[in-house]
Amino acid sequence: MAFKFQLNPDIKFEYNPEFLARAAENESKLITHQHVIKNWLTLNPQQQLTSLPKELIKVPLQRDDYRILDFGTHYVGHLSLDINIHGAKMDAPLTLKFQFAEIPAELGLASSNYNGWLSRSWIAEETLHIDHLPIHLQLPRRYSFRYVKITVIDTSPKWKITFANPTITATSAVDESQFPNPTSQDPELRAIERVSTKTLAECMQTVFEDGPKRDQRLWLGDLYLQALANYATFKQNKLVTHCLYLFAGMPTTSGLVSANIFTHGQLAPDDTFLFDYSLFFISCLKDYVLQTHDVSTGLNLYPVAKKQLDLALKHLNGIGKLQLPSTWPAFIDWGNNADKTTAGQGVLIKVLRDFLKLTTNLGLSINRRYPAALEQAVTYAQSNLFDIKKGLFFSGPNHEFNLYSQVWMALSKTLPSNETTKLMTTTYQDFFPVTGIATPYMYHFIVTALLESGLKAEGRQLIKTYWGGMLTQHADTFWEAYKPEDLTYSPYGSPLVNSYCHAWSCTPVYLIKKYHL
Amino acid sequence: MAFKFQLNPDIKFEYNPEFLARAAENESKLITHQHVIKNWLTLNPQQQLTSLPKELIKVPLQRDDYRILDFGTHYVGHLSLDINIHGAKMDAPLTLKFQFAEIPAELGLASSNYNGWLSRSWIAEETLHIDHLPIHLQLPRRYSFRYVKITVIDTSPKWKITFANPTITATSAVDESQFPNPTSQDPELRAIERVSTKTLAECMQTVFEDGPKRDQRLWLGDLYLQALANYATFKQNKLVTHCLYLFAGMPTTSGLVSANIFTHGQLAPDDTFLFDYSLFFISCLKDYVLQTHDVSTGLNLYPVAKKQLDLALKHLNGIGKLQLPSTWPAFIDWGNNADKTTAGQGVLIKVLRDFLKLTTNLGLSINRRYPAALEQAVTYAQSNLFDIKKGLFFSGPNHEFNLYSQVWMALSKTLPSNETTKLMTTTYQDFFPVTGIATPYMYHFIVTALLESGLKAEGRQLIKTYWGGMLTQHADTFWEAYKPEDLTYSPYGSPLVNSYCHAWSCTPVYLIKKYHL
Repeated sequence: MAFKFQLNPDIKFEYNPEFLARAAENESKLITHQHVIKNWLTLNPQQQLTSLPKELIKVPLQRDDYRILDFGTHYVGHLSLDINIHGAKMDAPLTLKFQFAEIPAELGLASSNYNGWLSRSWIAEETLHIDHLPIHLQLPRRYSFRYVKITVIDTSPKWKITFANPTITATSAVDESQFPNPTSQDPELRAIERVSTKTLAECMQTVFEDGPKRDQRLWLGDLYLQALANYATFKQNKLVTHCLYLFAGMPTTSGLVSANIFTHGQLAPDDTFLFDYSLFFISCLKDYVLQTHDVSTGLNLYPVAKKQLDLALKHLNGIGKLQLPSTWPAFIDWGNNADKTTAGQGVLIKVLRDFLKLTTNLGLSINRRYPAALEQAVTYAQSNLFDIKKGLFFSGPNHEFNLYSQVWMALSKTLPSNETTKLMTTTYQDFFPVTGIATPYMYHFIVTALLESGLKAEGRQLIKTYWGGMLTQHADTFWEAYKPEDLTYSPYGSPLVNSYCHAWSCTPVYLIKKYHL
Repeated sequence: MAFKFQLNPDIKFEYNPEFLARAAENESKLITHQHVIKNWLTLNPQQQLTSLPKELIKVPLQRDDYRILDFGTHYVGHLSLDINIHGAKMDAPLTLKFQFAEIPAELGLASSNYNGWLSRSWIAEETLHIDHLPIHLQLPRRYSFRYVKITVIDTSPKWKITFANPTITATSAVDESQFPNPTSQDPELRAIERVSTKTLAECMQTVFEDGPKRDQRLWLGDLYLQALANYATFKQNKLVTHCLYLFAGMPTTSGLVSANIFTHGQLAPDDTFLFDYSLFFISCLKDYVLQTHDVSTGLNLYPVAKKQLDLALKHLNGIGKLQLPSTWPAFIDWGNNADKTTAGQGVLIKVLRDFLKLTTNLGLSINRRYPAALEQAVTYAQSNLFDIKKGLFFSGPNHEFNLYSQVWMALSKTLPSNETTKLMTTTYQDFFPVTGIATPYMYHFIVTALLESGLKAEGRQLIKTYWGGMLTQHADTFWEAYKPEDLTYSPYGSPLVNSYCHAWSCTPVYLIKKYHL
């Protein structure tokens, strides 16, 4: 997850050495598998990927020649290959350009034309000088890819090169040779399950990364969803323990957990704070205790969960209205065009319920201020945010009706069950087919709201049209961004920095299993 | 030296382990010196280098910003610098482009526009991803430079960087803090001596390299001149021993020494053969024995020297005419427009004389076939290549009059001394000012021919106009190519791959001392 940059240079953090020690105890070892090249490809005159004729594979290459390696599916890891020399002795260095791609479209774009606002440094390419041949070249940096285009910037007029044995040493926290089987009877849903399991596995590294291509970071909102998918598949619960302790171990001096943590290199919290992400620490811990029965960790981390809620409730006014400061915005989804206040109110209500469940499950007594706050927040939403005539919630001073509000109000169960079903039925009539939403993250919540509100067929169908839509586009893993109505959409101005294997899109395997789809 | 590519894949080499062991015994240790940055530069609106205002040095940099480092003069070595981060945590990699330049003009050229025929891999640039900051970055590859332009390809919108402590760890086989003093009384010649000494020192690495930027290789023609300059300055004779044994240790199965040897990585001879370069093994060994009195090495290597001559004499026909096969051309100078047969004849005569001197100096008896061959070759040249009316030598079937023929016939002393003086006087009248010649290598032989023929003032003046002309262009070291009538000349289609510190241009210090200029 990444969209709007926050700059909070004055915020100070207070590390908790005990929690960080617990995090360290729960580190997972990465499992590696080697995969050799599956296909040698080239570009046809229409610039589409096509198989390289077998007799051309060993034809030596010189200036401006290229080869495209295809490893058959998406992996995260390190590329290696042998490079041999043909002709005279090496009278100049060899220069090669490597372009790593998760999807073919990335190979058609020149990085020199990139003008997006996200760092150009995320463009997955390397230019290397090689001074001695032959060589078994092992690229030092980890990449996330299926395809690699290797262009010969130059040899010399006296010699050429060939590539042999391209191999990826793929890493994951889980054993990719032992993937759980799909559970659905529906072939399309089974395919979706497989790809969401693959997506999850690729994002499970030393932490639950948001995307192994980019940002390679532990985001709380992503962790919340990844943990659910993990319980439905690999049950690699130690990785969840590790990540929860990381967030708990590096809060601000006020006790707020960061929206994300840097784990490559020196451990550090980001100075980005999102209301919903902070609160999802509570939901994630509630799920964790329910799934693992690890009450000890639950009790250790309960004060951190409670702290997030206490910080949130400071912004609930006397009549139960959530009023967030600009320094702690609700993310809800990408984009700042929609009013998110009602959705934020929904998040708070939903998380208050999770907190009460967590407290009960840990055998702790409930301070009555929390049920009181819940009632206040619910009452405020029912009385002040719901348009009885339209049967929909509105948001903000302009009484805007948006999908975010309906989904989060449904998830929060602010209305009685039958009225939530009516709410989502109306929502389905008014807002479907969904447009203007590009994140599988938000689609997850839309589907969940449908399924939780008894619109099982509609929820099931949305999984098929949305995640199935990515399969139609030959996705090996599910993407960070997918807008059915705009297949070339990038939130960053260029697909070159889009992540095509992204944690927050891995949830169908969980949804399909949980709701028996 | 490098110009025309030869491809001789069928030639086999026969290594001499004893000679290679002697080469290894005579390896020199490199001496390192650290130099910190002298000036921070920037480009003014006219794209000229100018000092960076002091208050800007520490201003943090982001996407597309750049700094130009100036180390004050030319060095060969490894760059290091500290990179610090300013702002938030590092939420993306840092990508930097490094462009190394021996002269400012290289910084104004984009490598993407390079279309020369020489390998693009020689363009001195690197693009590096840096995943963790702060860092003390040490670039792994050796470069030859005075200037480094570092462009920030990208940071992220959340942080910037600063550079500190740019340092070069410079290497040379000689101690650059102990340069010999110039010997001339003339300030301009003293300046030329200093720069040629610097040029020599920079090219003295583990071998006498032709150019530390490019080709970084031991060429026999360059070695011949470098050794002369070395005897006049550093007297680092062990390095000459090392290089002579390398050439002797890797001849073809026919005994021919290669024009050059690869010494970075695995030792190997190039499959390029040049008549004059092979023969210069003899001249170089003659000079070596004369300068070092190392008769033991002289006797060891004498059979190799003799072999080169024997191979050459196979191409001297019954009437003393040299007829070279296309597989063993005489280099003489860059370019194939001039007829080089008479110059080649001159090289043979000159080297025959060197061989006789070498034999005598080693106390060996002279086989009478060599003086006989010398007489034949001289007589043929006098009778068949000299135009008495014009007072000049001609070359080839079209009786072409070119400077190469006159210079090599003068150096070969084919005519009696007073007639050689007349020859060079006529040459001076007909061919000066010199045009169409771009190599300091050929200028060295022109100057030598003038000085040896009694045209001391003209030889001295040519050093001033030619090498002094490079000084006027602010040369820190003398260049591979310099054409006074075309200051932007590159033999490769782009100055990006020109070498601006090149062995074969280092001889003025030798000439000035030897001829007391």
